[in-house]
Amino acid sequence: MTELADRLREIVGDAHVLPGEPRYERDVTGRFGGPAAVVARPGSCAEVAAVLAACTAAGIAVVPQGGNTGLVGGGVPRGGEVVLSLARLTAIETLDPVARQITVGAGVTPATLAAALRGSSLALGVDFGARDAATLGGMVATDAGGAQVLRHGTMRARVAGLEAVLADGRVLRRLSGLPKDNAGYDLPQLLVGSEGTLAVITAVRLALVDAPHRPIAALIGMRSIGAAVDLVAGARRMLPGLQAAEVFDDAALEIVMGHLALPQPLAERHAVYVLVETDDDVDALAAALGDAGDVVVADDTARRQTLWRYREALNPAVNAAGIPHKLDVSVPLPAMAAFAAEARAAVESLGGTAILWGHLGDGNLHVNALGLPPEDERVDETVLALVAGHGGSISAEHGIGVAKRPYLGLTRTPEELSVMAAVKRALDPRSILNPGVLL
Amino acid sequence: MTELADRLREIVGDAHVLPGEPRYERDVTGRFGGPAAVVARPGSCAEVAAVLAACTAAGIAVVPQGGNTGLVGGGVPRGGEVVLSLARLTAIETLDPVARQITVGAGVTPATLAAALRGSSLALGVDFGARDAATLGGMVATDAGGAQVLRHGTMRARVAGLEAVLADGRVLRRLSGLPKDNAGYDLPQLLVGSEGTLAVITAVRLALVDAPHRPIAALIGMRSIGAAVDLVAGARRMLPGLQAAEVFDDAALEIVMGHLALPQPLAERHAVYVLVETDDDVDALAAALGDAGDVVVADDTARRQTLWRYREALNPAVNAAGIPHKLDVSVPLPAMAAFAAEARAAVESLGGTAILWGHLGDGNLHVNALGLPPEDERVDETVLALVAGHGGSISAEHGIGVAKRPYLGLTRTPEELSVMAAVKRALDPRSILNPGVLL
Repeated sequence: MTELADRLREIVGDAHVLPGEPRYERDVTGRFGGPAAVVARPGSCAEVAAVLAACTAAGIAVVPQGGNTGLVGGGVPRGGEVVLSLARLTAIETLDPVARQITVGAGVTPATLAAALRGSSLALGVDFGARDAATLGGMVATDAGGAQVLRHGTMRARVAGLEAVLADGRVLRRLSGLPKDNAGYDLPQLLVGSEGTLAVITAVRLALVDAPHRPIAALIGMRSIGAAVDLVAGARRMLPGLQAAEVFDDAALEIVMGHLALPQPLAERHAVYVLVETDDDVDALAAALGDAGDVVVADDTARRQTLWRYREALNPAVNAAGIPHKLDVSVPLPAMAAFAAEARAAVESLGGTAILWGHLGDGNLHVNALGLPPEDERVDETVLALVAGHGGSISAEHGIGVAKRPYLGLTRTPEELSVMAAVKRALDPRSILNPGVLL
Repeated sequence: MTELADRLREIVGDAHVLPGEPRYERDVTGRFGGPAAVVARPGSCAEVAAVLAACTAAGIAVVPQGGNTGLVGGGVPRGGEVVLSLARLTAIETLDPVARQITVGAGVTPATLAAALRGSSLALGVDFGARDAATLGGMVATDAGGAQVLRHGTMRARVAGLEAVLADGRVLRRLSGLPKDNAGYDLPQLLVGSEGTLAVITAVRLALVDAPHRPIAALIGMRSIGAAVDLVAGARRMLPGLQAAEVFDDAALEIVMGHLALPQPLAERHAVYVLVETDDDVDALAAALGDAGDVVVADDTARRQTLWRYREALNPAVNAAGIPHKLDVSVPLPAMAAFAAEARAAVESLGGTAILWGHLGDGNLHVNALGLPPEDERVDETVLALVAGHGGSISAEHGIGVAKRPYLGLTRTPEELSVMAAVKRALDPRSILNPGVLL
């Protein structure tokens, strides 16, 4: 290892080979992590390639890491790996307004990109609470979702090209961003969602979307998730600009009010709350909500951001309250209400506290369980089996990581798993990249 | 081979194992094809699996074939293969209006799907002239493009799930269509555009788009491709419903008028013609076209279809006039005019006649050369080298097939080609599926 560390220092410079420390070794939930052999922070694609070639030569495994905002342990070491941080790849090239595309380094955050796009009338089209810390490379590697998937799709739809490095240091570069380029297997699309197990993404060519003109938001108190699903199904038909339809339950509201010392946002408490955001006008929003009852509408930026704090502080609030089991799942929309009730009952029957939130348009629920031992996987087993029973996905948007690796067979067939393993062997035959993650 | 044919008859029935005949052995251009060992027409995914297992056991190569409308020789035998026709897989499942998805057999044509969707306010979102003969399985296998890519993307964007069979007969089935299903490598996306070399697609789960409300079209005479590119760039900003922006040159108009005995569509002849279609109103269209000069607007279905005949009969008209070299390429939009002039000059310098048309929004030009020997590849070499020089793609939407296999290295790096070959070996280690195509 000393020899490899010396070689890495030659490649990236002494200042960028660091000993392991918690911000690289432990994830934000506190549930996952382990000691790193060393942390390497290359400053260019060429340095990434040299680091990977050196690690392959030494036979040492590598954990690629972006903003370390992942929630399934896919970006932190299990023990003894080199952590390859992409945080220094922060170049942003000039916007191409004709193609509506921009090329960014893997370490650029969505917030930094948004600042660069200000005034362009274009936007990323993928948004979530960790926008100041997550990185675009990590978002591609995990096919990040978030609030705007119902309008713009997941990160996959935003990838017009990629630059990535294979385990042996060879570089794949496809950044031309041509809308029609039907010439062989689409390797960038293969890497989207591969969680750092096939190659290390160093730059992304992004297909941008129209920025919203004047988004408005509303928070609505509802009696049930079923009623909320129905409300959003109607709103989707009436609001072409609908770009978010979030849901959280009263336990979630309680914990976020406590964490941030926020006031109760509506006149009453309700079983669930729906937060919608649309780029349509207030009258259209009011018509879509109909007689929804206890509602607050935010038609200016400040009030809109205030409403979003209730939703976006949920992850930090839960992480601050303990070490949660976080089960990010999706089910077909008609099954969402039944699944939510069953998941809550499952958590409570094990003695835990269930806190539920998610994205209504996508059938995506985040089942958070507090008060259970981190190593006790009974809640994971039970809830993920419920998901499979409803024809859902055991990972909607967080990925598999190490957290859900034992459960992948619940919703992927042996044939699919066998082909995934064959693809892994084809691209990373020595299993240098993120071993133990996904497969 | 007799033994294999007997086994295939057991699997699919005597009536569905046919000797080779031109409609299976020769492509629509007449340029590509060869003798088939036999043609097998399975009627179900299980039969496809059994056919493939039998061919793998016999070590006989297989050419998957949809509607045999491909233009690069990817769906016809080179000599001695089993042609595996998917034309009998014509099941259409019930539309899911909540998810806006529908599952169809690989042999369903876009026209049949459109009929099934009538009254639903939903549409495929991918359209081209061969809509009565092409199949959705083939369109996924080739990542078909066409006229509406500027609004809805290529076929890739419409794939919410796939059922496919590996060379050894194992079935991959992922038809749940969950909008968020981030659980392992996205094998359906890997198969999109793989031209039958990795697996045989048997069913497709389609993500549909809003059907246009009342599309209107206009044909505009222009002095140059450069002027046409500028017109469309402006129209895209002003017409949110713009769903096609086609271009063809005067040689193309001449050949199609002759082929179909059509009258001259505008008052004058022009260097190029632009055909736009939009789901906006006539006033918006008029404003977007400004003082474009010689224009005809079609605001009813019959006149709109009349205008489209000039564009959509181009392929059959050219195929009827001889055996063309067909070069489907794309370049960045700012390079489109210069490339078109260079390509025309290249064809003419070799003694051929150049006929150009394409899709303006995507930088996609179809360079057709008539009057050159089919086996003389100098025009292919020259034009594709020009494309590479402009940073374009040697295949915009038709795929690589056998036609462009020698040229793939012009716009794909050795590293990319090496990874593609590794993926091919991983999924089809005995090279049973479409050998000689793409790689």
